[in-house]
Amino acid sequence: MVPIGLISKGIFHLMDLPVKGYTVGRPELLEAPIRWKGERILLKLPPALLRHSLELSTFVREVTGKEVIISARPSFGACDISPGECSLEGLAGVLDLGHAPMPTVYSRRGCRALSVPLEAVVDKGVLEKVLESIPLKSPATVGLLTTAQHLSLLKVAEKVLGRRGFRVLVGRGGKRLFFPGQVLGCDLSAARAVRDDVDLFLYIGTGQFHPRGVALSTGKRVLTLDPLTGLWGEVEEGERERFIRRRYGAMMMAKELIEAGEPVGIYMSNLLGQRREALAYEIRDRLLERGIEALLFQSELLTPGQVRDLSLKVLVNTACPRIAVDDYPLYSEVAAILLTPLEMIAILEEKPPEDYVLDEF
Amino acid sequence: MVPIGLISKGIFHLMDLPVKGYTVGRPELLEAPIRWKGERILLKLPPALLRHSLELSTFVREVTGKEVIISARPSFGACDISPGECSLEGLAGVLDLGHAPMPTVYSRRGCRALSVPLEAVVDKGVLEKVLESIPLKSPATVGLLTTAQHLSLLKVAEKVLGRRGFRVLVGRGGKRLFFPGQVLGCDLSAARAVRDDVDLFLYIGTGQFHPRGVALSTGKRVLTLDPLTGLWGEVEEGERERFIRRRYGAMMMAKELIEAGEPVGIYMSNLLGQRREALAYEIRDRLLERGIEALLFQSELLTPGQVRDLSLKVLVNTACPRIAVDDYPLYSEVAAILLTPLEMIAILEEKPPEDYVLDEF
Repeated sequence: MVPIGLISKGIFHLMDLPVKGYTVGRPELLEAPIRWKGERILLKLPPALLRHSLELSTFVREVTGKEVIISARPSFGACDISPGECSLEGLAGVLDLGHAPMPTVYSRRGCRALSVPLEAVVDKGVLEKVLESIPLKSPATVGLLTTAQHLSLLKVAEKVLGRRGFRVLVGRGGKRLFFPGQVLGCDLSAARAVRDDVDLFLYIGTGQFHPRGVALSTGKRVLTLDPLTGLWGEVEEGERERFIRRRYGAMMMAKELIEAGEPVGIYMSNLLGQRREALAYEIRDRLLERGIEALLFQSELLTPGQVRDLSLKVLVNTACPRIAVDDYPLYSEVAAILLTPLEMIAILEEKPPEDYVLDEF
Repeated sequence: MVPIGLISKGIFHLMDLPVKGYTVGRPELLEAPIRWKGERILLKLPPALLRHSLELSTFVREVTGKEVIISARPSFGACDISPGECSLEGLAGVLDLGHAPMPTVYSRRGCRALSVPLEAVVDKGVLEKVLESIPLKSPATVGLLTTAQHLSLLKVAEKVLGRRGFRVLVGRGGKRLFFPGQVLGCDLSAARAVRDDVDLFLYIGTGQFHPRGVALSTGKRVLTLDPLTGLWGEVEEGERERFIRRRYGAMMMAKELIEAGEPVGIYMSNLLGQRREALAYEIRDRLLERGIEALLFQSELLTPGQVRDLSLKVLVNTACPRIAVDDYPLYSEVAAILLTPLEMIAILEEKPPEDYVLDEF
């Protein structure tokens, strides 16, 4: 039994999970599910934690006192909650471990859901040393950015960079973002909020998807620091141009297919945080106005196999932007071009590459 | 525009689909969606018809006068309707083309849905000839069975077999079945309804899944007639024993894994016609009583990849029985044993193979 008494509002505690390498970064968030009415909680886990279903469901049962049912599919974000997951009989609510809360999702009628971020366990001493050695020219204003797994590292970075004489800014983003400095693949507004006041960004986290997005969205220099390996890097200067060239290549192929008479599919997810029905209808209308055949498709998830079975050659993805951009090769294997909604509009409006805009919610 | 006037209640018409090889067997069923309030219909299609999304969505729009959104995933039955599919804004209802209606699904609160069967186009003259030549010993009573694609063939078979001097019975099944003589993989009650009054069954349809189920469930001789190829056959006499031997092999492997301490996962689908939460909880309780670790899992669909990611070795499937039985090899590839709920109970109760019972809803 986890001592619930340790959880107190507003005080920052780290609570050990029964899984090595992670702690509950904001245990006070776990107080809400304790108060939820209803006997059952549907527990959602990110891919890396699925194999710990047994330990984590026991943990959640002990903290909340409720029966736990585990979602059999991985959770890729706080957006990733489906109407089916909210439809269990006797459900108190959906608890998503591993992502920051996304307030706009929880306001959806008929579904009580909450995301509670988990923090990756990091040697902060090592991180401080790395931060001290990152080659930065003073004086400069640095915008700090991170993801849900590393929120507590913003304080560490602020301290070290401040000591080194840098001004540090942490932007507050839009309504999909819960924490200052937090970025999502579909929401980089925390970066844009301070873009005009910073000389460069420092992104603390793993992978290239988010920092590349920040560079594309702000046009600023972006340093990266992977807190798990202690390695720092930088988004390459030509990356923006290379990315836009790749995407324009896809757009031109789609244009040719459309001109050859291929219908355009428009995909809508029914996940509560990935629904953009109005945008899908708008694109459908704009295609029909131009005499282009447009079909609307809906499902919880999209797979390359489905797109192949549907014989679709051009598909506009209104769900997670990552599907069109990161998963592009999986779909091109089944001979389909996936576009973001803004890319489809850019084709219709014949916008030049220098006007390229990332897909954000 | 399809002349709606052709549709009249109670009169049996065949309506040509804009797709070769199929007609709408019961066009009068399409009258209901015309009257549904709301502007949009979500159209569900079986795997073979997905590539005709464009023609079929145009057909449904013209018949119903409503905007059509297509489900991006294949529909495997009238049971296969998800809460997400019912959650589109402005939705009039879900229309599933290609299956017989399943009244128990449509009574679910908050979702208006209907299945309309499609008939495979068959040369009835050829079929009559085949029926005349099937070697049957007179006098005998024959139980007729079929699936949604071939409902109109029951009349043909009744006529020919009657002419040959056989007594013909068409059983009426339980609440998941709309038409007399109809069988589903999860509901063979139309066969059992006349089991004691027939000498043998004639199954008109494709595949071995349904006739094998009928043989297993009734213990009767089952002839098969594939109306697409005109070939007849028979479920082999040893098939029941071979099937039970295979399933007992799986059950014994699961038993060993459980005795070695592996937890048992219990899978529940949230599809409206595949939900058996009470059964899942009952099995969980029975496992826990015996000191066996039991975990409940839920999602719209199940995939071998998910089961591998969850590190599950033993999983009880409370959704479509076909997943545990037909898809067994896909799961054994990721080292997982899938059991039906009744197989899990048989393990706990140490029932002998001769008491084997198929999983039906």
